[in-house]
Amino acid sequence: MNTFTKEVMSVGEMASGAKLTVPVYSFKKENNTGPAVYIQANMHGAEVQGNAVIFQLLELLQHCELQGNITLVPYANPVACNHKNGEYTLGRFDPITGVNWNRMYHFDESVIAPFSEKYLDSSEKDINHDFKQLMLNEIEQKLDHNIFGLTTGQRIAYQLQRLAYQADIVLDLHTGPISSKHLYCPEYAQKSASYFDIPHTLLIPNEFDGAMDEATFCPWWSLQQAFEQQGRQFEMGQGLFNKESFTVELGSQEQIDLDVAKEDALSILSYLQFKGVIAGDKYQPQAMTRYACYLQDYKALYSPMGGMVDYLADFGSILDTGEPLARILRMDNYGDGEALHYVALDKPVIPILHFASASVNQGTELYKVFYNYFEL
Amino acid sequence: MNTFTKEVMSVGEMASGAKLTVPVYSFKKENNTGPAVYIQANMHGAEVQGNAVIFQLLELLQHCELQGNITLVPYANPVACNHKNGEYTLGRFDPITGVNWNRMYHFDESVIAPFSEKYLDSSEKDINHDFKQLMLNEIEQKLDHNIFGLTTGQRIAYQLQRLAYQADIVLDLHTGPISSKHLYCPEYAQKSASYFDIPHTLLIPNEFDGAMDEATFCPWWSLQQAFEQQGRQFEMGQGLFNKESFTVELGSQEQIDLDVAKEDALSILSYLQFKGVIAGDKYQPQAMTRYACYLQDYKALYSPMGGMVDYLADFGSILDTGEPLARILRMDNYGDGEALHYVALDKPVIPILHFASASVNQGTELYKVFYNYFEL
Amino acid sequence: MNTFTKEVMSVGEMASGAKLTVPVYSFKKENNTGPAVYIQANMHGAEVQGNAVIFQLLELLQHCELQGNITLVPYANPVACNHKNGEYTLGRFDPITGVNWNRMYHFDESVIAPFSEKYLDSSEKDINHDFKQLMLNEIEQKLDHNIFGLTTGQRIAYQLQRLAYQADIVLDLHTGPISSKHLYCPEYAQKSASYFDIPHTLLIPNEFDGAMDEATFCPWWSLQQAFEQQGRQFEMGQGLFNKESFTVELGSQEQIDLDVAKEDALSILSYLQFKGVIAGDKYQPQAMTRYACYLQDYKALYSPMGGMVDYLADFGSILDTGEPLARILRMDNYGDGEALHYVALDKPVIPILHFASASVNQGTELYKVFYNYFEL
Amino acid sequence: MNTFTKEVMSVGEMASGAKLTVPVYSFKKENNTGPAVYIQANMHGAEVQGNAVIFQLLELLQHCELQGNITLVPYANPVACNHKNGEYTLGRFDPITGVNWNRMYHFDESVIAPFSEKYLDSSEKDINHDFKQLMLNEIEQKLDHNIFGLTTGQRIAYQLQRLAYQADIVLDLHTGPISSKHLYCPEYAQKSASYFDIPHTLLIPNEFDGAMDEATFCPWWSLQQAFEQQGRQFEMGQGLFNKESFTVELGSQEQIDLDVAKEDALSILSYLQFKGVIAGDKYQPQAMTRYACYLQDYKALYSPMGGMVDYLADFGSILDTGEPLARILRMDNYGDGEALHYVALDKPVIPILHFASASVNQGTELYKVFYNYFEL
Repeated sequence: MNTFTKEVMSVGEMASGAKLTVPVYSFKKENNTGPAVYIQANMHGAEVQGNAVIFQLLELLQHCELQGNITLVPYANPVACNHKNGEYTLGRFDPITGVNWNRMYHFDESVIAPFSEKYLDSSEKDINHDFKQLMLNEIEQKLDHNIFGLTTGQRIAYQLQRLAYQADIVLDLHTGPISSKHLYCPEYAQKSASYFDIPHTLLIPNEFDGAMDEATFCPWWSLQQAFEQQGRQFEMGQGLFNKESFTVELGSQEQIDLDVAKEDALSILSYLQFKGVIAGDKYQPQAMTRYACYLQDYKALYSPMGGMVDYLADFGSILDTGEPLARILRMDNYGDGEALHYVALDKPVIPILHFASASVNQGTELYKVFYNYFEL
Repeated sequence: MNTFTKEVMSVGEMASGAKLTVPVYSFKKENNTGPAVYIQANMHGAEVQGNAVIFQLLELLQHCELQGNITLVPYANPVACNHKNGEYTLGRFDPITGVNWNRMYHFDESVIAPFSEKYLDSSEKDINHDFKQLMLNEIEQKLDHNIFGLTTGQRIAYQLQRLAYQADIVLDLHTGPISSKHLYCPEYAQKSASYFDIPHTLLIPNEFDGAMDEATFCPWWSLQQAFEQQGRQFEMGQGLFNKESFTVELGSQEQIDLDVAKEDALSILSYLQFKGVIAGDKYQPQAMTRYACYLQDYKALYSPMGGMVDYLADFGSILDTGEPLARILRMDNYGDGEALHYVALDKPVIPILHFASASVNQGTELYKVFYNYFEL
Repeated sequence: MNTFTKEVMSVGEMASGAKLTVPVYSFKKENNTGPAVYIQANMHGAEVQGNAVIFQLLELLQHCELQGNITLVPYANPVACNHKNGEYTLGRFDPITGVNWNRMYHFDESVIAPFSEKYLDSSEKDINHDFKQLMLNEIEQKLDHNIFGLTTGQRIAYQLQRLAYQADIVLDLHTGPISSKHLYCPEYAQKSASYFDIPHTLLIPNEFDGAMDEATFCPWWSLQQAFEQQGRQFEMGQGLFNKESFTVELGSQEQIDLDVAKEDALSILSYLQFKGVIAGDKYQPQAMTRYACYLQDYKALYSPMGGMVDYLADFGSILDTGEPLARILRMDNYGDGEALHYVALDKPVIPILHFASASVNQGTELYKVFYNYFEL
Repeated sequence: MNTFTKEVMSVGEMASGAKLTVPVYSFKKENNTGPAVYIQANMHGAEVQGNAVIFQLLELLQHCELQGNITLVPYANPVACNHKNGEYTLGRFDPITGVNWNRMYHFDESVIAPFSEKYLDSSEKDINHDFKQLMLNEIEQKLDHNIFGLTTGQRIAYQLQRLAYQADIVLDLHTGPISSKHLYCPEYAQKSASYFDIPHTLLIPNEFDGAMDEATFCPWWSLQQAFEQQGRQFEMGQGLFNKESFTVELGSQEQIDLDVAKEDALSILSYLQFKGVIAGDKYQPQAMTRYACYLQDYKALYSPMGGMVDYLADFGSILDTGEPLARILRMDNYGDGEALHYVALDKPVIPILHFASASVNQGTELYKVFYNYFEL
């Protein structure tokens, strides 16, 4: 049976001086030669199911044959996960500033070109070691308080990023509002997506927008492209560039279900086994039709009016052209106007998630859909 | 086909000067001799399903044989139903003051004794007419701005109460957080509860705590008791005191489902037919086991710890002694403490509703249960 | 120099498991025979200045000649004081339930009559000891978790109340929104009000509404009245009933000013010296005109319209009949209506506080004023 | 006396169907040949003082000799200005999404190069007319609902931008949290800054980050630079490029003061007279030392700890090296740690604004300062 260690990381202080901490669990052995893994959950406050998945992973990993080190971090953002507004958790953004907690990671693209030039003829081992060190140094420098300090979210994000940068594989466990399971996957790692029991995959390009997954793969992908431009060929997801990072959307927010969490944990083990982190062939992905969509075709539909929404479209199955996604109730129009308004799209789509409340303003996001999809 | 009229009632102004209005629908005929009915929805902002039920009632009532007048008010509290905090609607209380929107109705018990003494020997017709007028005058006086003004919630509540006081039967459509359907029913109206398709009934005593249902039946019940003390017998729910008022809890908040709303509308028609508001025998209640519980035995269970809750107990069926209602995940304790904590009770209960979010503070209400229940 | 001890009291847990604690400072000597004192601050989250006053009291009390024990509790409610909504602290009520944090203390009036009957002929010493013990037992019983648990606010309130019930004098440090300094003082303790450097005093009757000050003096006042009804005379504020409790409103919320806090600390020392807690005559109240008002004449003025308010009336000086308290800007009416609306009252008043924001809904509290006032 | 017209623009709908509108005031004469002006206020909900300034401008402009058309829009964002959370207005960002309301304007830089190439040899008049038309078309196209709709904030921003794009001069009236008056001014318009009665000016470069001022001047500045690169010289702020746009920070949020608003209105008239919008020389700027700072040197200082802040530094005067900006109270450390922590900087600075609440988390923005300043 594998043993793990537990450490506690300080990530913030509140007005009363209360310290907020994050537990960090590690399975680490010196002779582990497989890829190192970093898994975190609950960066957005209401997206709690990942904590239950980490619970189940900790239960299961103690009985796996591990070939790579694994670090697991539940409650990654206690400032967000403790923030109630009414009955719900207001956790997508810093309640003081509005900044999305998952848009504060750091990657300064300007370090890539100098590195790729300097290391054009270096060994893979040196490139790997020194680039990883460069990335870690960048974060250390950010965390080393300059005279002006850090924002609340940066302090959390950079500490998590320091842990993530020590791994080859990063899984950031999120959920949608009311949502099907889906996966954000860098385009080059499409093959890996089939090892998760997740029917919908978003393929994302090499563009950094501040999120954990991007912060993890963009540096390596940018480096690979920089080398390529200079004539040295590497393939992403292979060898030196065997780096993968996913945002795993586990379903709906504001919910804990330990039984479903076990299924999700098994799905993650299937992927980790595929990547050689776990030995053997015990964990196999389920058979299912897996659909994919490029990020640019993942469309949000905003409400054409204020009103109260009866969400009609099921997740995961194809909704035909013209079939209603939702009908919007407008009782103020009853008797002298249209009390029901139907919302549909102009081609078949796969609905992935919808807004968490029936009550919407004009312009509130109603649904997100795969607008062009294909089988994976 | 019955026709209805529509009026618009101004209930508030926001900082920009924006006026908030409420639509008021009425079926009214001069020769209607049955009981008058008042139905409202959405006094609490997130409890929106009642609006859909009023939509379906308006559709259905146009084709009923009406013997009593009916007034329907959706969006009763637009201040609350428009108030977003994050994705959800913060609608149980005034966001400025914290006061529960459904605790601001008016009833001054001190008017009962003088009235009952003065009218001890009066005819039922006079009692009925003059007491109703007294109640209406009380509200008018409140609405007639005194020099210090009214709170935001009082202005809304008193305007609704003015409408409700013109009816014999009042239905206030609410929902729980995540909830089964249940009914708040005054103890004397227990028989009527069986005409709703609602399996759980709370029997409430003659105590005024500021809610719409209480504000409607407490005056009449108090009057009946005052007469009784002076030796004149009347029975609540009969003759002069044929007044009934229910808070109808339609299920979970933050949801609109027009199909379920139709079922709920039919259930209300069944009750209205029983009370003679609708002629004929078309609308019959469904057969089901109906459980009841006295208000004093309707218990809230508060979380013994902060944590993340996997709500286990189903609504509506009996949960045996010691069976867990919920398990609370405490990942911060994993590895060096108890990561899972089970919550159970000491006797069989019927769970009715639970909190809307998995994330709770120590002391957050987890479940409400029928702690002593019986078949209706 | 007096030394103090410091303990830490656990009052709550958040969803991440984070524990919230409250520091408790005590000056205690066995041979102290003067009244025992309990001082707390920041029960409402945004009302922080009391923490600075406790800082200054701790600095000063180390150099006083103490005759009574003193307990000081800053950050009394860390759940509230850590709760941000936007830039401000949403701290008047539990953000989940809306319940005012200062309305959750416990006093069950039904214990008074049996006690007064049983102790009608007892010695003052026995009455004092046993009634205090009864009060403490009541709280212990509440804290002793029953099977249904406690709300978040009850858990905090009862723990504070347990500390307060061990004292004879209780000061609960609050602030208004934007406010002058004022004092809530039980009617019988009017004389003590002059020892604070606070120009406005509210005289409050023996009615329990859940607040700390009431929870502290109402039991004793009720007991004194119960004895009186049975023919045994005691005077409140004297001998056995030398119990006093004040809510001290230190000015405006959301502000810390350590210099002003020192003035407020000196004002409290002046009162404590008057009560014999501190020996000597070093601390004297400032000369000033002190106005008082009965609670029933402390009037809130609610906005007659939505709009944006230019608050005109100064605090603390008499505003003549018809002089505007405020003018409300309604730009939506400019050009085709009245863009400025003036608010005035029908007699001279003393404005005490006003709302914290220019933007108001129809029905938002604008000002609170002494509507009938007199010199203390 | 000049007359104005008033129109009402629909900008949003809430869940109850309530429509939110914005009043639009216009002084317009056919033979006005001076620059056209657009002034708006209250895009951020709590920043209300601009509405009072528009009130005073409307009063004053009726008596000016106008040479240019002027459009004035108070309450520009009623969704934000009506949104209460507790007593305050949560108005910096969409409460559902967290997106800053002043980061949703549109400018697509890719249209510049094709235009400048096509119009390289065109007349100034044609360039002016056609580029303005291009900008307006861009906005129209955005407003023309595509099948996916617009977000709540885009719908508001684009409608305002459509009005602003018809003007040569744009003033966006904002406030800081607790703040001195200061001005965001494009670098090329530095001379104009001296005509406002505002002692602090931020000089901003040609970088579009979504704000109204940038959305207005960046297109023209980019066009001027594109022409320059192709060898055709124009000067920003002159002739064809006589376009200016300022964000005017009027002081602190949550406040209306009509007397101060009159001073600010006069300051704006002084600037408009300088630009030839108003004839004559009646309105002259006040004599004062005006300091400026480049945007890159406008520094935010984030709190090194959670705690409660006594803000010490005055606005507008130079704070010497090492002088404390603030002291942070940490009562939880009293007795066994440092209860007071001082925050200072390493060189002389001019404090411009500070956070609106004493209570801060670790990482909350405490102050913003001119870190390198110079006299204007």
